[in-house]
Amino acid sequence: MSTATAATGEHVTQPAGGAHERFFAAGRTQLVDEHDRVLWQTLQRLTEGGKRFRPLLLSRTYAALGGEDQELAATIGEAVELLHTAFVIHDDVIDGDLVRRGRPNVGGVFSRRAAAVGASQERARNYGDAAGILAGDLALAGAVREVALSGAPPAVVVRLLDLLERVLHRSAAGELADVRVSLTGDASLADVLAIAEWKTAAYSFQLPLQAAAILAQAGDEVVAALEEVGRSLGLAFQLRDDLDGVFGEVEQTGKDPLCDLREGKCTALITVARSTHLWDELAPYVGAPDLTPEGAVRARELLVACGARAAVEAMVSELRAAAVAAIRGLPCAAADALLEMVDLLVPRHTPAVTIREHAGAASGGRQDVRGAA
Amino acid sequence: MSTATAATGEHVTQPAGGAHERFFAAGRTQLVDEHDRVLWQTLQRLTEGGKRFRPLLLSRTYAALGGEDQELAATIGEAVELLHTAFVIHDDVIDGDLVRRGRPNVGGVFSRRAAAVGASQERARNYGDAAGILAGDLALAGAVREVALSGAPPAVVVRLLDLLERVLHRSAAGELADVRVSLTGDASLADVLAIAEWKTAAYSFQLPLQAAAILAQAGDEVVAALEEVGRSLGLAFQLRDDLDGVFGEVEQTGKDPLCDLREGKCTALITVARSTHLWDELAPYVGAPDLTPEGAVRARELLVACGARAAVEAMVSELRAAAVAAIRGLPCAAADALLEMVDLLVPRHTPAVTIREHAGAASGGRQDVRGAA
Repeated sequence: MSTATAATGEHVTQPAGGAHERFFAAGRTQLVDEHDRVLWQTLQRLTEGGKRFRPLLLSRTYAALGGEDQELAATIGEAVELLHTAFVIHDDVIDGDLVRRGRPNVGGVFSRRAAAVGASQERARNYGDAAGILAGDLALAGAVREVALSGAPPAVVVRLLDLLERVLHRSAAGELADVRVSLTGDASLADVLAIAEWKTAAYSFQLPLQAAAILAQAGDEVVAALEEVGRSLGLAFQLRDDLDGVFGEVEQTGKDPLCDLREGKCTALITVARSTHLWDELAPYVGAPDLTPEGAVRARELLVACGARAAVEAMVSELRAAAVAAIRGLPCAAADALLEMVDLLVPRHTPAVTIREHAGAASGGRQDVRGAA
Repeated sequence: MSTATAATGEHVTQPAGGAHERFFAAGRTQLVDEHDRVLWQTLQRLTEGGKRFRPLLLSRTYAALGGEDQELAATIGEAVELLHTAFVIHDDVIDGDLVRRGRPNVGGVFSRRAAAVGASQERARNYGDAAGILAGDLALAGAVREVALSGAPPAVVVRLLDLLERVLHRSAAGELADVRVSLTGDASLADVLAIAEWKTAAYSFQLPLQAAAILAQAGDEVVAALEEVGRSLGLAFQLRDDLDGVFGEVEQTGKDPLCDLREGKCTALITVARSTHLWDELAPYVGAPDLTPEGAVRARELLVACGARAAVEAMVSELRAAAVAAIRGLPCAAADALLEMVDLLVPRHTPAVTIREHAGAASGGRQDVRGAA
């Protein structure tokens, strides 16, 4: 259930000063005690760093559609990033994760503080969960507030808040579905793609793209086209992230390549593999907490041999092509800017892989996938 | 950590039609699947029923301050109620509660759904927690959105959103502190009162009162006076609720009178008792999950005998008097309306108690309390 983290090639690691600083400075005037201060500091730290491709997608699209108030675009971009932070924090509580990007997240910081005053492991965990829920709440409410007070014209604010509401519903439904399929482990490929669309494409792609169009007061047909661009691009991004999670190099993705396999994450890659004749051989490696590096090499070989890797690569290509086709229907300058962003977010070339390729093994699951994609 | 539930004497159990219906109808157009539909229905059910004294406090104060747009006041009142629902839902996740007002809450509904498809108890619980976090998120974002789109003049919306932000920070800090003091069980009376102020008085009293003044475009001195009214009234309400939780009749409070004692809730009543000479005798009854009705009778006798009950009753009277004094500084019509509300929310007379009173035992803890209150 982790949020997509594929490398974008170009990192924008510092938040735009204005809106971000204003938000956290305003919050600092409200703090009531030391614990509250630590909560706020931890929240601020979690909004910094990261790839910040959402504000970039928003501001570039906005400018390409003729928008001239980059400060306004940056404010909405910060709100989207704050929403992302809220989702990540609540996602970590739901998943029971205490670490994010190699450092303690909200739950990690606060469960340690509880342990330091002698709380049992269970109670410390509960305190960490409470802090995570509350910090996420502050970020979420902050995101809606920042949009409402962005200074955009009133009619634009209404449209932005409507878009935000739609995205919130989809994200919640996607997160819920993601937890649900992990209960039974029998998700279909259609389920997995719907979850990726609701949980990732909606807020990370459709929201910044469509917010940019609404801000630039582009026509309804542009806003509608960007919904399709966001859907295809978001799905391609998520599926590429799933591939990177298993086949990527740690230097490139920043993720331990054994992590997704150990967790048994219900990705498109695994779902396709489950429908193939090699699944019985592969299954013991998936979701094995004690998976060894040698076991992971074997699992990767099997994911290639059963055709799942090629099938998902093909889906990425198709979704990328669908995004490009939808982009070509946009005004020229916007199309040019977005084609650049596609290359940045879903590079055309497959990432380096750590195992030898099985040249003849790439067709197994492909028919299944095309049927469902 | 449960939210205050003292009977108000006058119940307003049906939400004002307009804003409430519009919000849930708009949400229904966003649903993506059956599970999402159940989430939304459960959320709507949880916003209905209850005492709804916050919208009442807001609309009466608004009218008394000369406000004439009752529909607008009702919309903001619904937003406050939605915020309350969000807090209650997240509070239940934090406390691990699956029932609210005798019916399954969000976590209860969704953990049962998971169990029905064969999930283990732990996984079903995790699914219920996820649903609770997500439903609370939708309610919280909805509350901010409803204020932003209420149709109030733009400058009023800004002031309302600033008030809301302040209240959100305090509520989060209060909830966090509430979980924290339960870790060590050594909260001082000052801690307990600060938690009640941040966690209950801020959003349930200061928010509706001050929002009413902002909406009615009352002067800054009125808004400031209402902060003090809300603080005193909210604390009095919470302390009365704590007394009712132990000494009240179930017919009157709707709460099992053994519940707070069994849970070992860190209330002002218990905190005062802890500082008295009878604590060693009382302690075994507090936080005893298997407390019997006979044990509860003995615990109540000891809470009276040690002076804790009288001390907290005295604090309620003092806080009530402070609220009344602050109210008398308001314009006449507003003062009259609020004095009525004080009688409704914190009735002057002590509720019926189920044990015999110990006439001579009421002075033990009082000095401590006055010092801290």
